[in-house]
Amino acid sequence: METPDNATPAGDPDDTDTPTGIAAKDWATASAEPQYRAAVVDLLGALAYGELAAFERLAEDAKLAPSLEDKAELAKMASAEFHHFERLRDRLAAVDAEPTAAMEPFAKALDDFHRQTAPSDWLEGLVKAYVGDSIASDFYREVAARLDSDTRALVLAVLDDTGHGNFAVEKVRAAIDADPRVGGRLALWARRLMGEALSQAQRVVAERDALSTMLVGGVADGFDLAEVGRMFSRITEAHTKRMAALGLAA
Amino acid sequence: METPDNATPAGDPDDTDTPTGIAAKDWATASAEPQYRAAVVDLLGALAYGELAAFERLAEDAKLAPSLEDKAELAKMASAEFHHFERLRDRLAAVDAEPTAAMEPFAKALDDFHRQTAPSDWLEGLVKAYVGDSIASDFYREVAARLDSDTRALVLAVLDDTGHGNFAVEKVRAAIDADPRVGGRLALWARRLMGEALSQAQRVVAERDALSTMLVGGVADGFDLAEVGRMFSRITEAHTKRMAALGLAA
Repeated sequence: METPDNATPAGDPDDTDTPTGIAAKDWATASAEPQYRAAVVDLLGALAYGELAAFERLAEDAKLAPSLEDKAELAKMASAEFHHFERLRDRLAAVDAEPTAAMEPFAKALDDFHRQTAPSDWLEGLVKAYVGDSIASDFYREVAARLDSDTRALVLAVLDDTGHGNFAVEKVRAAIDADPRVGGRLALWARRLMGEALSQAQRVVAERDALSTMLVGGVADGFDLAEVGRMFSRITEAHTKRMAALGLAA
Repeated sequence: METPDNATPAGDPDDTDTPTGIAAKDWATASAEPQYRAAVVDLLGALAYGELAAFERLAEDAKLAPSLEDKAELAKMASAEFHHFERLRDRLAAVDAEPTAAMEPFAKALDDFHRQTAPSDWLEGLVKAYVGDSIASDFYREVAARLDSDTRALVLAVLDDTGHGNFAVEKVRAAIDADPRVGGRLALWARRLMGEALSQAQRVVAERDALSTMLVGGVADGFDLAEVGRMFSRITEAHTKRMAALGLAA
């Protein structure tokens, strides 16, 4: 698997370890370009709403917990997502963007995703928390390389604070060990999650030009649909490997 | 209204500003008495489960929010309750009590309370958050005077960090100004909340001897039902005054 860390960023074939282009600039310099500015506001809005929606879903899933310890663990994840939301919202305000206006364009896609993938039991909730956390991490890493230094620092800080995955992995593995048929059901579930996530992501990409253009290699290089496809396919591959490691054929 | 701060603590008629009895001791000394120790474990267990349940309900109520800002505000309250839960749970573990075992005796009363008082709209949710927060503060203050210095410091620290009430007060007042009939409906609702809270609290008092005895004036002085009644009545009075200030006839 190509990880975003050692992959050559698209649209920048001469990239070395020294940041170039947008990545070499700070926010004050980079944001002078209106389209870049709009793309970052879009990105922060999408991430902020994503964290708030994740808070709500994890808090909801905590109800399915079989024990008080498990409930507390999911509540802790939910609370961590809320703190990510706060940082992203505060950053939007700090760059004079109205947080609500920045989040709203992404509310429908994220709400639809969560509505389409409401877990029917505790294990489905855990797999969803794990898959969601992992895909979000992959996406944050993909996008970080394309950001100015200030925005990148924020995105990486929010990413750094995640990683609740171990809890989910342990519980899911134990459940599959106890009853291997659970693995088949959860593998189907993980496929559905990924399919629904991609379908909503593609809707967002189609609707938000500035954001999509940035994601695929920077404002100057124009929109490259093939590169969007490659990014989705890197994220999907990473997902497949994680599912296999979890004992779920993806 | 007698506030707990200037009221004479029950069972200690000679109380001055200098702590005496349990309040003059630290945890290491006070917990040598097994009944006191059991009472504090009960108390921390009840508070911890209360905070976890409050987290869940506030996160649930966030769904009713009419705007993204309002949703974020309720999510923030929920997250604060979760952090209170963490402190109380960690304290239970630090005094070698099993947190889950300490919480479980109180789960049913708190779950029943929340089930009986599920808000049917955003304003009912806000009134419930405000009433719940205020009653919890009153109760924490009542009980703090009866605790050893270490436990008291924790209870007051958790209390100090609440006070999200202003948000609810503003929103409820604005709603009543816009439509005075809302006031009548919410007044009924607040009465129902208080009635249900008292009924669950009385069940807990009846079932948990060590805790109840401590609440009414310390282990040495025995159980005084009249003092439990006075404590409930101080809390009810404070509630009535708050509701009146909010524009709700209680």
